[in-house]
Amino acid sequence: MEKVNLVQKLSLFNDQYSPKIIGEVNDLYVKVVKLQGEFVWYHHDVEDELFFVVNGALNMAVREDGAEREIMILPGEFIIIPHGLEHRPSADEETHIMLLEPKSTLNTGNVENERTVHELQRI
Amino acid sequence: MEKVNLVQKLSLFNDQYSPKIIGEVNDLYVKVVKLQGEFVWYHHDVEDELFFVVNGALNMAVREDGAEREIMILPGEFIIIPHGLEHRPSADEETHIMLLEPKSTLNTGNVENERTVHELQRI
Repeated sequence: MEKVNLVQKLSLFNDQYSPKIIGEVNDLYVKVVKLQGEFVWYHHDVEDELFFVVNGALNMAVREDGAEREIMILPGEFIIIPHGLEHRPSADEETHIMLLEPKSTLNTGNVENERTVHELQRI
Repeated sequence: MEKVNLVQKLSLFNDQYSPKIIGEVNDLYVKVVKLQGEFVWYHHDVEDELFFVVNGALNMAVREDGAEREIMILPGEFIIIPHGLEHRPSADEETHIMLLEPKSTLNTGNVENERTVHELQRI
């Protein structure tokens, strides 16, 4: 059991939209991921998802009550997307994120496409 | 559903060793706490516990295989204490922490004393 440094873990890979596992707390995984550009709209039927920004700026679009809005999340900030909520992460510059979500979570939620990652790497 | 800024949440209170709830991800709470001085030795029978340092320096003493060691955790770093492991947080200067742990977690684990907090405040 050792401590984990987020910036050091993020220095170990370059691929985007490919979450890596860096820890587990009971039924949840702690992951890091690099994002740039626009992801897909998706939701998770049962899993909540926490996005904590380490570097960069995360633009989270959400659909609530038929309306769309965008929330900008900066380093030291997080947002929790409750299950069922349609959302779409995007980032103009490369943005580094720590994710917390149940182990059962698929990165693209209810959608399966070329960005779906089934077997996550541990780093 | 709004974003959460850790430093802003930590500015809302001054009491130490009194975790406040700032979010939930399925069965886990996200909390913030201010620590200074030495806490008690304790463990959790079933819950893992993640300590992420926001400001300051957390000195985590752990007892493994009959030996004691200390791990210094700095801002941007975290440590996950697996269930069953005896540990004792301490901090020379006031240190600000984000905690992730199952909702069932009691802050003093298997020990109940004057530092046990049964009803956590939400901020």
